[in-house]
Amino acid sequence: MTNAIRVLIWNEGRHERDTGTIRAIYPDGMHGAIAAGLREVDETRFQIGTATLDEPEHGLGTERLAATNVLVWWGHNAHNEVADEIVERVRRRVLEGMGLIVLHSGHHSKIFKALMGTTCDLKWRVAGDKERLWVVAPGHPIVEGIGEYIELPDEEMYGEHFDIPEPETLVFVSWFSGGEIFRSGCCYGRGAGKIFYFRPGHETFPTYFNPDVRRVIANAVRWAAPVARPNRVFGNVKPLETLPARAPA
Amino acid sequence: MTNAIRVLIWNEGRHERDTGTIRAIYPDGMHGAIAAGLREVDETRFQIGTATLDEPEHGLGTERLAATNVLVWWGHNAHNEVADEIVERVRRRVLEGMGLIVLHSGHHSKIFKALMGTTCDLKWRVAGDKERLWVVAPGHPIVEGIGEYIELPDEEMYGEHFDIPEPETLVFVSWFSGGEIFRSGCCYGRGAGKIFYFRPGHETFPTYFNPDVRRVIANAVRWAAPVARPNRVFGNVKPLETLPARAPA
Amino acid sequence: MTNAIRVLIWNEGRHERDTGTIRAIYPDGMHGAIAAGLREVDETRFQIGTATLDEPEHGLGTERLAATNVLVWWGHNAHNEVADEIVERVRRRVLEGMGLIVLHSGHHSKIFKALMGTTCDLKWRVAGDKERLWVVAPGHPIVEGIGEYIELPDEEMYGEHFDIPEPETLVFVSWFSGGEIFRSGCCYGRGAGKIFYFRPGHETFPTYFNPDVRRVIANAVRWAAPVARPNRVFGNVKPLETLPARAPA
Amino acid sequence: MTNAIRVLIWNEGRHERDTGTIRAIYPDGMHGAIAAGLREVDETRFQIGTATLDEPEHGLGTERLAATNVLVWWGHNAHNEVADEIVERVRRRVLEGMGLIVLHSGHHSKIFKALMGTTCDLKWRVAGDKERLWVVAPGHPIVEGIGEYIELPDEEMYGEHFDIPEPETLVFVSWFSGGEIFRSGCCYGRGAGKIFYFRPGHETFPTYFNPDVRRVIANAVRWAAPVARPNRVFGNVKPLETLPARAPA
Repeated sequence: MTNAIRVLIWNEGRHERDTGTIRAIYPDGMHGAIAAGLREVDETRFQIGTATLDEPEHGLGTERLAATNVLVWWGHNAHNEVADEIVERVRRRVLEGMGLIVLHSGHHSKIFKALMGTTCDLKWRVAGDKERLWVVAPGHPIVEGIGEYIELPDEEMYGEHFDIPEPETLVFVSWFSGGEIFRSGCCYGRGAGKIFYFRPGHETFPTYFNPDVRRVIANAVRWAAPVARPNRVFGNVKPLETLPARAPA
Repeated sequence: MTNAIRVLIWNEGRHERDTGTIRAIYPDGMHGAIAAGLREVDETRFQIGTATLDEPEHGLGTERLAATNVLVWWGHNAHNEVADEIVERVRRRVLEGMGLIVLHSGHHSKIFKALMGTTCDLKWRVAGDKERLWVVAPGHPIVEGIGEYIELPDEEMYGEHFDIPEPETLVFVSWFSGGEIFRSGCCYGRGAGKIFYFRPGHETFPTYFNPDVRRVIANAVRWAAPVARPNRVFGNVKPLETLPARAPA
Repeated sequence: MTNAIRVLIWNEGRHERDTGTIRAIYPDGMHGAIAAGLREVDETRFQIGTATLDEPEHGLGTERLAATNVLVWWGHNAHNEVADEIVERVRRRVLEGMGLIVLHSGHHSKIFKALMGTTCDLKWRVAGDKERLWVVAPGHPIVEGIGEYIELPDEEMYGEHFDIPEPETLVFVSWFSGGEIFRSGCCYGRGAGKIFYFRPGHETFPTYFNPDVRRVIANAVRWAAPVARPNRVFGNVKPLETLPARAPA
Repeated sequence: MTNAIRVLIWNEGRHERDTGTIRAIYPDGMHGAIAAGLREVDETRFQIGTATLDEPEHGLGTERLAATNVLVWWGHNAHNEVADEIVERVRRRVLEGMGLIVLHSGHHSKIFKALMGTTCDLKWRVAGDKERLWVVAPGHPIVEGIGEYIELPDEEMYGEHFDIPEPETLVFVSWFSGGEIFRSGCCYGRGAGKIFYFRPGHETFPTYFNPDVRRVIANAVRWAAPVARPNRVFGNVKPLETLPARAPA
């Protein structure tokens, strides 16, 4: 199975533990629903693991990260509890080539802000807005199998300005019934790694059971998988060419 | 007045001539309203001329184009009446450095399609939708003086997919009350010329009297003004360097 | 073999027919060498056909194009002999999603210029410059298996300014021993189609036998393969939402 | 002088103090040479101040930064001596709209790395390579008055891979006589601020006396000047629209 992608789904994991109404929606945790979605879309290609905040090293030990091709990240209330050294460890792995899929409230995670360089602030409202994610990059592999838009009957609203660097490729733009728009599917490269931010997924809605949302996440994992190449070389180097000596000025 | 920008506002000019209700909105033509808007925003900087389809050479003679820094384009029903050789003349001037501001239904003009390479097709609906143009490029000179969004109470809807190349900079995204979004402010470079597509301006609405719309057009003209540089050199050239002879293989 | 990519390699095919020294390098035509390269890199995935200028309809009949996933294009002296209606046929297929790989002197082909909207002019020199194509997009699938650079001991020089739209992703930049640089690997989207321009391949050098060049072309074909999605809808549409009636002004 | 741009030139300032050969090249410091260059290009528009590492708060007090439109940054050996809280202060000002011009070895400054999110590592060699910076964005205001390339007879080499995010606009690519290329003029937006990285300027060469280099820096300062707009709003917001109540599911 040489073509397999090793995916690690990281979840804060507190909402489902602490709040009954959320546990009722996600009895296996949001990571469990996301993992089930990956399997549903592509039964054979993904080797899936999960990790949560309260595990030792947040489940993100050095060896485990080294063996991960693509990391999926969902966090919300406990961003500050993620240890700085582990954030830096994840960042180094992304720069080496590991893919990173940042979901919803992960926009304020330490890892996303460190890789973006901006505040990643935005507008928000939890009022059951309808969201419609319009495809604006029709040839992109992340929208394979997706129609003109994805409709979510109830979601948290996120609105502009979203304080991110201009996406290298903008894949989705959301319409919200309350009057806002949002750049909701954004591709970036950082080092040898590829990053996709995908907006939907507030914990009080069953968004990660939506077939289109599941397909987008699976497509994004395949898109973000690392490319096999030799390590890049940095530092002091010798010339590759010897130009003729120039006459003194 | 060395810093002046010579602007030529081109308008099809048929709706205002042929339809009383449109003439009532734009008694001086849409070009007249756009010209008045430029003067309102910056009284001293613009040297403004206008041209319309039914003038000889559509008002786009070689000398006139050669003396134009930025061309503003509004067309709708008569795109096919614009002569191909004049379209090619305009295209050459853009590639040489002349700025081009394409407004609203100009998305289907020959000149815009030739410069984009795509169909520039889109969805549309004339039903008095509310439009709200959200700024997504907060540091761009085209949004100087503009708040978080521009609101237009009645406009034609344009929806995605808008079949254009990915904008080099996306400045505005529109929300429409009927459920659609649209990339409504798009920057491109072609040759040495800069192009801005700006969505609003259906002929049955007084959009070109809106102060924010006027400011955006004025800002866009300043942004698109040519940059003084020597002509680019193409074709067969001699080496700039003489590398040492390589030993025969 | 559901995952197969149907590749059509189009070659002008005149140099190899008319010039003995070139025929000696490419006895099976440049299209033959390119086809052999694809098979060498990935024996099972590509279903390869070839077509040349002097076939009926240049080998680009409607049905054949409809059955093509990715078209590879090499042309040089006879760009003007390619019929306009066939260029338009190819363009429509690209906008529908067919991938297009444009090689070397194909920069001046009608199809590339039509899709770019610019002159695609450049500087050039046939003097056996050394070329070194540096990777600047280390995580891009087109550079899978490629080191820091590709070195070609003898190639035609192409220099800036290359009159193309700014690439959506710039993958390679070439260094030439005579003192020039060139954006030599450029990705674009047009409609639902993906386009890759790749510089190397002058007919007097055995460039399409170079293993790295072959790998890049194979990677590019995989990257440019269409994404399965419903057709985009354009034109007049009904609202998706019914907002409350607004009070008259 | 409403149109004036308040520029603050920040320099580490140690090389000129500690090393006689460098002091001989830059008797007024590199900041002095850069300031003289700005005045040479545009005598009236810039209000210029300078600051150095060894001043209190590195010369970057809160009030001073608040009054700065564009900050120019040159640092090299003492990046780690720049206090983290002052880096964060500068970063906040950039996100609010202050322009930032990062020169040469500033690629490894804390402020540039924080805004980019990557290591900003590169290859380098101090061997008096010839550098030729080719213009690849011919309509960009940063190249106003610049020919096809800028030639520097002796400079430090910087080579790819340069570990930065893909530039939003790539303005220059350098050719080096030793065989390398480098993306040497790179534009970014972060928050409401604009950033330009410009490669030349090793301390042992009189690069900041070169008229073309001076013109590029002056052009970049004008390009990076802030755009007057209201502050962006973030956080919890009310709906702008009231859609009709949806029927219960």
